[in-house]
Amino acid sequence: MASELIDQLTIETDSKIVFFILDGLGGLQMEGHPTTELEAANTPNMDRLVAESTCGLMIPVEPGVTPGSGPGHFALFGYDPVQANIGRGVLSAAGLEFDLTDRDVAARGNFATLDASGNVVDRRAGRIPTEENERICQKLRENVKLPDGVEFFLKTEKEHRVLFVLRGDHLGGNVDDTDPQQLGVPPREPVGHDEDSKRTAHYVNLFLQQVREVLHDEPQANMILLRGFAKHRPYKSLQERFKLRSYAIANYPMYRGIARLVGMEIAPVSENLSTQIDELERQWPNYDFFFVHFKYTDSTGEDGNFEAKVKVIEEVDQLVPRMVNLKPDVLVITGDHSTPSALRSHSWHPIPVLLWAKTARRDRVTKFSENDCLQGGLGTFYSQHLMSLALAHAGRLIKFGA
Amino acid sequence: MASELIDQLTIETDSKIVFFILDGLGGLQMEGHPTTELEAANTPNMDRLVAESTCGLMIPVEPGVTPGSGPGHFALFGYDPVQANIGRGVLSAAGLEFDLTDRDVAARGNFATLDASGNVVDRRAGRIPTEENERICQKLRENVKLPDGVEFFLKTEKEHRVLFVLRGDHLGGNVDDTDPQQLGVPPREPVGHDEDSKRTAHYVNLFLQQVREVLHDEPQANMILLRGFAKHRPYKSLQERFKLRSYAIANYPMYRGIARLVGMEIAPVSENLSTQIDELERQWPNYDFFFVHFKYTDSTGEDGNFEAKVKVIEEVDQLVPRMVNLKPDVLVITGDHSTPSALRSHSWHPIPVLLWAKTARRDRVTKFSENDCLQGGLGTFYSQHLMSLALAHAGRLIKFGA
Repeated sequence: MASELIDQLTIETDSKIVFFILDGLGGLQMEGHPTTELEAANTPNMDRLVAESTCGLMIPVEPGVTPGSGPGHFALFGYDPVQANIGRGVLSAAGLEFDLTDRDVAARGNFATLDASGNVVDRRAGRIPTEENERICQKLRENVKLPDGVEFFLKTEKEHRVLFVLRGDHLGGNVDDTDPQQLGVPPREPVGHDEDSKRTAHYVNLFLQQVREVLHDEPQANMILLRGFAKHRPYKSLQERFKLRSYAIANYPMYRGIARLVGMEIAPVSENLSTQIDELERQWPNYDFFFVHFKYTDSTGEDGNFEAKVKVIEEVDQLVPRMVNLKPDVLVITGDHSTPSALRSHSWHPIPVLLWAKTARRDRVTKFSENDCLQGGLGTFYSQHLMSLALAHAGRLIKFGA
Repeated sequence: MASELIDQLTIETDSKIVFFILDGLGGLQMEGHPTTELEAANTPNMDRLVAESTCGLMIPVEPGVTPGSGPGHFALFGYDPVQANIGRGVLSAAGLEFDLTDRDVAARGNFATLDASGNVVDRRAGRIPTEENERICQKLRENVKLPDGVEFFLKTEKEHRVLFVLRGDHLGGNVDDTDPQQLGVPPREPVGHDEDSKRTAHYVNLFLQQVREVLHDEPQANMILLRGFAKHRPYKSLQERFKLRSYAIANYPMYRGIARLVGMEIAPVSENLSTQIDELERQWPNYDFFFVHFKYTDSTGEDGNFEAKVKVIEEVDQLVPRMVNLKPDVLVITGDHSTPSALRSHSWHPIPVLLWAKTARRDRVTKFSENDCLQGGLGTFYSQHLMSLALAHAGRLIKFGA
């Protein structure tokens, strides 16, 4: 479905594209709320933009498929979300700005508590403070030794969470989780499913045996559970694919990480959307493509808080004119997936999208919402074509064929 | 995306299908014109047809991709426009009704003027008259000799344009242009990118060295610049694929050429749309599928002349009843791509389409326009599926599976 055709047709121009991504934007009616959150919200600024835009609905992966943030964002950036899908470990590494090499396998770790007979009694080690996590990581760095030619790295995340990276030759990423996802049983042995992954499993096992010994006197964090083993594969960057100098203004590690994986430069963490837009204004001359990420449409949806989601949409709407004032050649407002308050989770429902550009064929949509966008000129399409459409409307694609 | 399934399901019937292609039909609002050209046009006859049709919008290649006439038409005829895409040389040969064999590589040539030091001073040799072109081609035929087993052909196009064909064994088409596309520099050497194409480049070089000698005393046309090298690949015909005896009523070489490539018989060049329809009436008993091509919706768009495009659409509309009177089983009116006057060029915007047939599920569209077709029963779909839809509505596709 995705196509290298676009890459071949791309040219450089001085046009500018902004993707304003409201995470989990799409919604659903629920008890006491006959419309979606976006339909219920009062959004005069986005509605005004819609009148000069072409609108539509996007399917993030394929009909019925609920994406995680990874596939949701890869699709937005023009990557096939299935081919581009990566293990959780690599995503974590990217989010922590840990530069993986092609000799690395990464996994997410939890510090956990085992009882005297080696069974898991707390999968999160009582959510130890981050400083404890750092202390224990240092202890492991000093005391765990792997054979020559193989190294490990630990990087503290928040509380009990840690990134684990194994570096060496011919390591595969097809290794089962050691996290049993339940209590009262021992951690699982690492199992590899091909020759290189068996090699990984062997070293992971050596690592975990020593972890158990080194941490045996720790009161809480006396073991690490690993999941989401994944081998790093480099991505072609937005520069290589689309000749875009690109800049990500995103505050959460995962989105910063995905942006890094596709070669974006990353803004410093910012206080709120208003200061993110300050940064957008500051960097306006320096890049072609800007990814501005807003998290709270997703988190209010995950909380099941319909009113709060409506409210953050209305707050966002107040700031949209500042983006318009920069006169981008293309301004896209959409989400990476739906997060209906009614479901308290990501969902498969198509995402409303508006594409504002002088070259947009104006449709008859006058309000930014799921049911209005259904009447829009872009129709219903796959998220992975959004980048092609943005490039086209920005005059960055040449004609295909004579 | 394209499917051999359709080919397998096709049966012969006595039903008749007309594709009336208004080149570059789709449009865009522009300064002083709040709607598209088609929306602005008064089209009572097409609107009447729409009321009995199913409508939609077509994406010619994929979202955001602007097609040339080649991909645009291949898609209309049911061919994957990316797979079917051909080099400019082959398209030119087809347009000139030069029958390429599978031992041929074709390129477009320009007669050009070099100065005494061998630099290009005029890429079009002062646009020499066509008769001069013919004289010089004859001179080259008489004086240039290639080694045994290799032949060349030159066919005069208009003014300075010429078709060059190299015929021999194991010739590849992956050869760079010799046209430097700028003045004050010498022509480029032909460079081939695989073994067979290096062979081509070698003979092209032998040819061009002699051209330079033979033409050294010509005042204007003293060299040929070549571009768009391409190897001929035969296409499965509409007869082979869909069991259609097909007839093209098109006046411009490129469209006649593409129709030839997919096995259509070609009507003599006709004076105007009215005489094209005379020909349609005359040939009505003899074919199953008719391709009627109208150029001026595209050329007025390329001129940026909104009013003129509106006017030709209105003129076309007056002639539509003559097609309806023939009682085709399926009449499709659409374009190969959009050519908005606002952009003065082909564009990626979807193309409105109406499909009139007794078997069409009538939708609620009452006016033939981009924004009305958006509400049509066919939805938004890829052009390469149009032929399947036409065959189905004409009763020419059997059931798939038990």
